[in-house]
Amino acid sequence: MKAAIIAVGSEMLGPIRVDTNSLKVTAALESFGIPLVRKSVVGDTLADLAGEIRFAIEHVDLLILSGGLGPTEDDLTREALAEAFGLEMTVDESIVATIEARFAARGWKMPDVNRRQANVFVGQTTLRNERGTAPGFHITLGDKDVWVFPGVPHELDWMIATYFTPWLSKRHAGQALHRRVFKIAGLTESGVEEKLKPYYDAHRGEEVTILATGGQIEIHLMARDVASLDARQREIEELFGARLFGFDDDTMESVIGRLLASHGETVSTAESCTGGLLGSRITDISGSSAYYMGGAVCYTGAAKIDLVGVDPALIADHGEVSEPVAIALAQGIRERFKTTYGIGITGIAGPTGGTPTKPVGTVHIAVASPSGVDHRKLLWQGPRTTVKWYSTQQALDLLRRVIVGAVKR
Amino acid sequence: MKAAIIAVGSEMLGPIRVDTNSLKVTAALESFGIPLVRKSVVGDTLADLAGEIRFAIEHVDLLILSGGLGPTEDDLTREALAEAFGLEMTVDESIVATIEARFAARGWKMPDVNRRQANVFVGQTTLRNERGTAPGFHITLGDKDVWVFPGVPHELDWMIATYFTPWLSKRHAGQALHRRVFKIAGLTESGVEEKLKPYYDAHRGEEVTILATGGQIEIHLMARDVASLDARQREIEELFGARLFGFDDDTMESVIGRLLASHGETVSTAESCTGGLLGSRITDISGSSAYYMGGAVCYTGAAKIDLVGVDPALIADHGEVSEPVAIALAQGIRERFKTTYGIGITGIAGPTGGTPTKPVGTVHIAVASPSGVDHRKLLWQGPRTTVKWYSTQQALDLLRRVIVGAVKR
Repeated sequence: MKAAIIAVGSEMLGPIRVDTNSLKVTAALESFGIPLVRKSVVGDTLADLAGEIRFAIEHVDLLILSGGLGPTEDDLTREALAEAFGLEMTVDESIVATIEARFAARGWKMPDVNRRQANVFVGQTTLRNERGTAPGFHITLGDKDVWVFPGVPHELDWMIATYFTPWLSKRHAGQALHRRVFKIAGLTESGVEEKLKPYYDAHRGEEVTILATGGQIEIHLMARDVASLDARQREIEELFGARLFGFDDDTMESVIGRLLASHGETVSTAESCTGGLLGSRITDISGSSAYYMGGAVCYTGAAKIDLVGVDPALIADHGEVSEPVAIALAQGIRERFKTTYGIGITGIAGPTGGTPTKPVGTVHIAVASPSGVDHRKLLWQGPRTTVKWYSTQQALDLLRRVIVGAVKR
Repeated sequence: MKAAIIAVGSEMLGPIRVDTNSLKVTAALESFGIPLVRKSVVGDTLADLAGEIRFAIEHVDLLILSGGLGPTEDDLTREALAEAFGLEMTVDESIVATIEARFAARGWKMPDVNRRQANVFVGQTTLRNERGTAPGFHITLGDKDVWVFPGVPHELDWMIATYFTPWLSKRHAGQALHRRVFKIAGLTESGVEEKLKPYYDAHRGEEVTILATGGQIEIHLMARDVASLDARQREIEELFGARLFGFDDDTMESVIGRLLASHGETVSTAESCTGGLLGSRITDISGSSAYYMGGAVCYTGAAKIDLVGVDPALIADHGEVSEPVAIALAQGIRERFKTTYGIGITGIAGPTGGTPTKPVGTVHIAVASPSGVDHRKLLWQGPRTTVKWYSTQQALDLLRRVIVGAVKR
C-alpha cells in the first residue's frame, strides 16, 4: 500500500504558514510501515483541487485530504471530489441536527451556511467530529481509499486517533512499526555518525535517522518488534555511555527533573548571560517546584555581589566572565538557597561585548555540589538566542553528569 | 504569471521535517504579486519526480524546484527533468574545476561522485553556488521558466537573493508589492476582526491577513506602493491606538528595549511561576544590558521573602499567588535593583496546584514605577509553557503601557 496527502487551503500557499497536519497523518502511516510517496498543498480553487485529486490518486492506494470542509463558499473539498470522480451528493439530516445541537449548546442558532457541511456522498462513512462542526468522511473507490479530515489541527488529531489509526491497525494487523528515539548530548552530528560506524556495519540496510536539534542529537530507529529495538538499544548504550541522556519524549530538563525528584535533591541557579533561560527551562517541567528553589538573574557585577555574594575581588581580578566568577555564582547560589546543587553561568552572548581574549560566545558554566565544584569553558558561534540555548543545554548536561556520577574531573 | 513549487527529498516525507524552502520562494514570488497555485513534496524516485514535474508545469508558467542536486545516487532532480522534457545533458568542465577548487581550498581531493554536479542541460543558465558545491540552474521551455535550487536552506536563500529576485524584478518591473505587519496586544483574534470592521468596509476586495501567534495578533497588509501602506497605517493606528505595539519584525521585548534605552530607564524582574522566562525574553535583545539589571526567580515563599524582601505577613494573609504579593515582588525588586521599573509575576502554571478559588492558570502581574504600581489578574488555559509565555507577554505589555502612559488606572 502506498499513500499520498493533499492539504487544502490558500493560506498555506503564502510565505508564512506551513502545512503541519500532514506530519500527523504521516506518523500514523509510518507506524504501519505505509510509505508516503508525495504530498501537496493546493489552494481553494475547484479546478486545481479536482485536478490534484485525480493526479494524486493515480499513483497510490490511499489518499488523505485535510481542510476545505468548512461552511463557507471557499471550502471546496467535497465539490472537488465530486467533480474528480463523478460522485453523487445528498444531504444527511442527522448531520444537520448534530451541528444545530452544537450551536444550540452555546445558545446560538446555526447559520444556514452550515447546512453545506451536511452534504455527503452516497455510501460514505461519515466521521463524526466531537471537536468541531465539520464532519470528516471515508469513501472507497474500487480498491482505493480516500479519507478526508477537517483542517483544524486539534480536530484532525482527534479524528486520526479515533478513526484513522484504528482502521489502519485493522487493515495492517501485525505490521505495526515501533519507533525509539535516543538522545545524545556532548557530541556533534558528525561525531555521532562516527561513533555509529560499528553499528552501521552490523546492521546494513536498516534505516537510521539522525537529527540535530537544539544542542542535542537524536538517533531514530524503527522496528517491527519491541524486542529487536531493545537489542539495538543495548548496542547504542554501549556506544554512547553517559552521553545517551534520554529516550523518546525526554528533554534534558525532564531527565534532570526525574533524577532530582527521585533522589530527593534540589537545585538553584545564578545566571548572567542566559538571563533566566536556565530557570525557565527547569520550570517548564510540571512538578519542578519540588526540586527547583529559584535563582538570581545577575546581569550586572553589582547583582552578582549583592544577590549571590560573589567576592568583588574575584570580579576585579578576573572579570565578570571568568571561571572563578562562574564557580562563585554556583557556590554562592547553592549556599543562599541551601540546595543540593547550584548552577552558575556567566558569558558574553553577543553580538557586542567581546574582547580579543574573551570573544563573543565565551561562556563559563559551573555546578556546585556536595562533592565539590565542576566547571566548563565554552565557546559558541551564532546569534545570542543560540548562545543562550546551548549554554543552558550544556549547564543542564553538566548537572546531569554530576548527579549520575559521570563527570570527568 | 502563475507559479508552482516542488521540494525534492524523501526526508521531507517523514513525520518530522517540513519543507520550509518553499516559504522563501513564496516570499520572493509574493513580493512581485505572482500567485502560487500549488506546492508539493516528492521523494527521491525518478518516475515519481518526473511525473510530478510534468503535471506541475502543465498549469503554470513558472516552476521552481529545490533539492536533489547533490552528488549522490539518490539526487535525481536533473535526471527527472531530462526524462520529463526529453532534454539533452552534457558535462560543464568549468563547474568541475570550481568544485575541485572548493575541495582543494580545504586540502581535500574532490570525490569522483561530485562530477555528477557538473551535468548541465544544453542552453541552461548555470547559477554558481558560493555557499556549496551544487550549482543551481534556470532553463526555458517554450514560454515557461524552470528554476532549480539546491535544498540546503542557506544555499537556497543566497541563490534567491542573488539570482531569482533580480530576475523577477526585471520581468515584473513596477509590480513589486510591499508588506507591512502591524502587531496588536491585548485583543483576541476575533476582537481584532471586530475592530477592523470599518476598515474592511472602507477597503473591500483588499486582502487582509490576520495571524494569531504567541499572545499577539498580526495584521498583514500588502500594497504596490509605500504611500498607500502609510495611509492604511494611519487608519490602523486610529482603530487600535495603544494596542498597536509594533511593526514588521518588532517583538514585545524589542519594543520595550527601544523604549527603555531611548528614555535612559531601567528594569528588573521578580518571577515566580514564569521561572525566569521574563528575564530571558528581555535579554534576547542585543543591548539589553543597558537597561536590564537582573532579577530574582523565587519559586518558594522563602525566596520571595529573602531575595525580594516580601513581607511574610502578606504571604500568610493572602497566599503566594495574590495581588499583594505580585505588587510586593514588583516593588521589592525595583528597590533592590534601584531600577526605574520593577516587574512582579506570581501564579499557578499547572497542571497541578490549583484550588477552587485559585484555579490553575491564575496569574498576578504587577509593574512598579515612579508613578505608582499597576496590577492585573489573569486567568489562562493551556499547558504550563503556554501559561508562562502569555503571562510574560502580558507583563511586558503592562510595562509598555506604563512607559508610554497608556495604562488604565
